[in-house]
Amino acid sequence: MLWPLPEGIETPALVVDRETLLANLDAMADRIHEAGVALWPHAKTHKSVDVGALQLARGAAGLTVASLAEAEVFAEAGCTDLFIAYPLYVSPAKADRLHRLAARVRLSVGLDSVEAAGRLAAAGVAGRLDVLVEIDSGQHRSGVRPEAAGELASRCREMGLPVAGVFTHGGHGYHDRSAPPGAAADERAALETAVAALSRHGIGAVRVSAGSTPTAVASAAGVVNEERPGTYVFNDRQQLELGTATPGNVAAAVVATVVSTAVDGQVVLDAGSKALASDRPAWLSHYGIVPELADAPVTALSECHGLVTLPPGVSARVGTVVRVVPNHICPVVNLFDRYDVVSNGVVVDRWPVSARGHLT
Amino acid sequence: MLWPLPEGIETPALVVDRETLLANLDAMADRIHEAGVALWPHAKTHKSVDVGALQLARGAAGLTVASLAEAEVFAEAGCTDLFIAYPLYVSPAKADRLHRLAARVRLSVGLDSVEAAGRLAAAGVAGRLDVLVEIDSGQHRSGVRPEAAGELASRCREMGLPVAGVFTHGGHGYHDRSAPPGAAADERAALETAVAALSRHGIGAVRVSAGSTPTAVASAAGVVNEERPGTYVFNDRQQLELGTATPGNVAAAVVATVVSTAVDGQVVLDAGSKALASDRPAWLSHYGIVPELADAPVTALSECHGLVTLPPGVSARVGTVVRVVPNHICPVVNLFDRYDVVSNGVVVDRWPVSARGHLT
Repeated sequence: MLWPLPEGIETPALVVDRETLLANLDAMADRIHEAGVALWPHAKTHKSVDVGALQLARGAAGLTVASLAEAEVFAEAGCTDLFIAYPLYVSPAKADRLHRLAARVRLSVGLDSVEAAGRLAAAGVAGRLDVLVEIDSGQHRSGVRPEAAGELASRCREMGLPVAGVFTHGGHGYHDRSAPPGAAADERAALETAVAALSRHGIGAVRVSAGSTPTAVASAAGVVNEERPGTYVFNDRQQLELGTATPGNVAAAVVATVVSTAVDGQVVLDAGSKALASDRPAWLSHYGIVPELADAPVTALSECHGLVTLPPGVSARVGTVVRVVPNHICPVVNLFDRYDVVSNGVVVDRWPVSARGHLT
Repeated sequence: MLWPLPEGIETPALVVDRETLLANLDAMADRIHEAGVALWPHAKTHKSVDVGALQLARGAAGLTVASLAEAEVFAEAGCTDLFIAYPLYVSPAKADRLHRLAARVRLSVGLDSVEAAGRLAAAGVAGRLDVLVEIDSGQHRSGVRPEAAGELASRCREMGLPVAGVFTHGGHGYHDRSAPPGAAADERAALETAVAALSRHGIGAVRVSAGSTPTAVASAAGVVNEERPGTYVFNDRQQLELGTATPGNVAAAVVATVVSTAVDGQVVLDAGSKALASDRPAWLSHYGIVPELADAPVTALSECHGLVTLPPGVSARVGTVVRVVPNHICPVVNLFDRYDVVSNGVVVDRWPVSARGHLT
């Protein structure tokens, strides 16, 4: 059962159903905590101090972010524990900001290179933050090989940087529909290897962090003592296709209006790539689905036009309001300034997308 | 010869070279005006009141926008002639805003349906704006068939809406590398058919508007008396591939820093889909190119990670600063709050992306 759409809203709009969101937050917190693992939700999905507060109220140990600028937003909102799970490179332009941030919150940062470690040490914040070494568990994006983590951790120590542990992101769990279980197992195995590698250099890994929505529950075991899922708060078409969520778990959608029916067999929505983003993994066709039009696919995007190809027997008039479940909700959120929060089809709140942009 | 990158900039950053921009503005204005055609540049590309002012200073007749909210921004900045070249559907939530806007500027709006005409008439702004009927010249996105334009124009007149003419967007000029000339010819032919169709209903087409960067110069002939190119101000990888621009015409880029070299054969930039957007036409591989790394391609994007596959013999260290020429600059601009404007490699100005977001 899908939540009812609000009436009279200006489109395109980013709409969140409050009850579905709260249920998603509760479910993930319960499952991760039942495993005895700390939850550090990745705030890059929601970029919202309101959603972050709800996560902390449900026992999150802290929030994960992807940039210094995102960390600054959540620190300003009163969040005291922040993890920049990203290979942070502290350019001279960023050193002062990092200094100020590390003075006000318990901060941890990721790195995967001697160069980044050197800049962090040179920034003079060594005693005021923790370092987690990033390892590659199979996504092959960033992170050192697990067996090389000990050497990099040792170099960090020599530079005076306190190493708290290791982290990975099993992003290859998004590779195709069958990928999540294998990626979760890879995360656990790689972190185990990395912990042993640190140990050989006499370094204990206090924090052993994995995480993505498709792998979070399955990898919360063994040496892993932290999980960093992000997308679970809202879910999206990708999570539906991966089997991580059901339609009843989709808490956010882009509400749009049919603005053109001039070309046969399709309708055009006022939500294009500037509202839906253009993310499309290789294993997934199209850019989203429209539940109000029998899950018709969004088959093409211009910046302000979303083309929906109509299934046989389905039609819609200009002016019809529908929702789009986008492929990937994280970049979609980043396109809007605010959430319209609904409950039983009525707008009950508006939340700013507090850390929209904030890339630096 | 590429413009020099600025030093000491926080990355990722949206950087514009002032001299290249000015040269692009001059060249398009000269070519369109030489054809005796009015230039209505599409401001959805730059979303900047500063760039808009430069276009108007070069004789632009007005600015084209894609939404009511964009029009409001440019009206607020003092622009007096605005064309919403989009099938505007005036929901009740938008009627008041349209009223206020139409009271302060010379406004024209597009439509392609009786429903949209009805809402426009109901909004009570009929005497205060012009209507242009959108026609489909081959993109098959929105717009009525050219021969049907007369009937829709006639219905508009019956509702009291003043019809000023017809417009089209030959977006199929982006279909592949050989497409622009054909799309330009299609625009001209379709507009000619539409003008005749209006004439059969006793309606003269005062404004006959075509436009896209790949087709603008070629379609500025015959019945066409307005052109609406957008991307030409900055250009991008798509324009390079279409042959519409050369590397020396690329005025904007995303400046990024190498943050990881941990995986062999690639480097990771701090510019991902939240800085580069994910647009990729079917005929183009990858998400952008990196001139500083021998035009190496950006082969994969996460939200804050851009993976660059290194050609043989090319390497880069963590901390290296490079530029990315993205596939499509328009959605990229929409991801940033400001431009860093450089001249000879020095930041000389900062311009807000005034109409960033502004989808409604």
